Amino acid sequence: MEPNRIRGVLETCLYAQDLAKAETFYTQVLKLELFLKSPDRHLFFRCGDAMLLIFNPDRTRHQQSRVNGSPVPGHGTAGPGHVAFNVPEAEIQTWREWLIQHDVTIESEVTWPSGGSSLYFRDPANNSLELTSPGIWKIEA
Amino acid sequence: MEPNRIRGVLETCLYAQDLAKAETFYTQVLKLELFLKSPDRHLFFRCGDAMLLIFNPDRTRHQQSRVNGSPVPGHGTAGPGHVAFNVPEAEIQTWREWLIQHDVTIESEVTWPSGGSSLYFRDPANNSLELTSPGIWKIEA
Repeated sequence: MEPNRIRGVLETCLYAQDLAKAETFYTQVLKLELFLKSPDRHLFFRCGDAMLLIFNPDRTRHQQSRVNGSPVPGHGTAGPGHVAFNVPEAEIQTWREWLIQHDVTIESEVTWPSGGSSLYFRDPANNSLELTSPGIWKIEA
Repeated sequence: MEPNRIRGVLETCLYAQDLAKAETFYTQVLKLELFLKSPDRHLFFRCGDAMLLIFNPDRTRHQQSRVNGSPVPGHGTAGPGHVAFNVPEAEIQTWREWLIQHDVTIESEVTWPSGGSSLYFRDPANNSLELTSPGIWKIEA
């Protein structure tokens, strides 16, 4: 039997070795809601109808945890990843000012040919973050 | 002025050096809808109200593209990342059979203490993928 289409992405991951710095950044600057925390291993944030998981790759690269007897497979990357967050186009300028107030360097600002714009900046682990509106992908807000 | 909360994650990224293999896997096995493709650089998939972007990190690690004169910042990781996809709990078993039919090895099956279950397997680039229901995060389907 063929399964139905996947409904969406539930967990998006980034990696950071310094989770204390990441926690400050994601809660205070990006205003995400901290859902679960395991010091030095992970920070789990609620973000809309999904989760942003930030792992210390030194702790998760090799499988280590078991749940009800089953292993939770290992993963972990090195180098800068990328996540874009969904922000209404009308709020991009407010975010731009907010980021600057919080000493975040705006690395680039892109105006897309099809409409909409993006702000690019880095988290403390050098991951590339973007704030943009779903219209750039022709997705309705 | 303080901005409103971010509405969600719009772009989730994984990295794969062999994009041809990734395309076959994500379209035929995971049944994602291919939205845009640049051979040897990226595959962009629509997934619900968001996008799954798969990049060849050898091509995106160093900034290279410009849009309307502005740089699109570089990113790219090495090592296995992780993404969980949103599937209703009632469809997990159908997916399990579908994956096995497509010669995908189920690396682990977890039953969560709070309810719900997860299937774990790898994409051709060794990224850790998971199919699970949003209930495991107390998110309504």
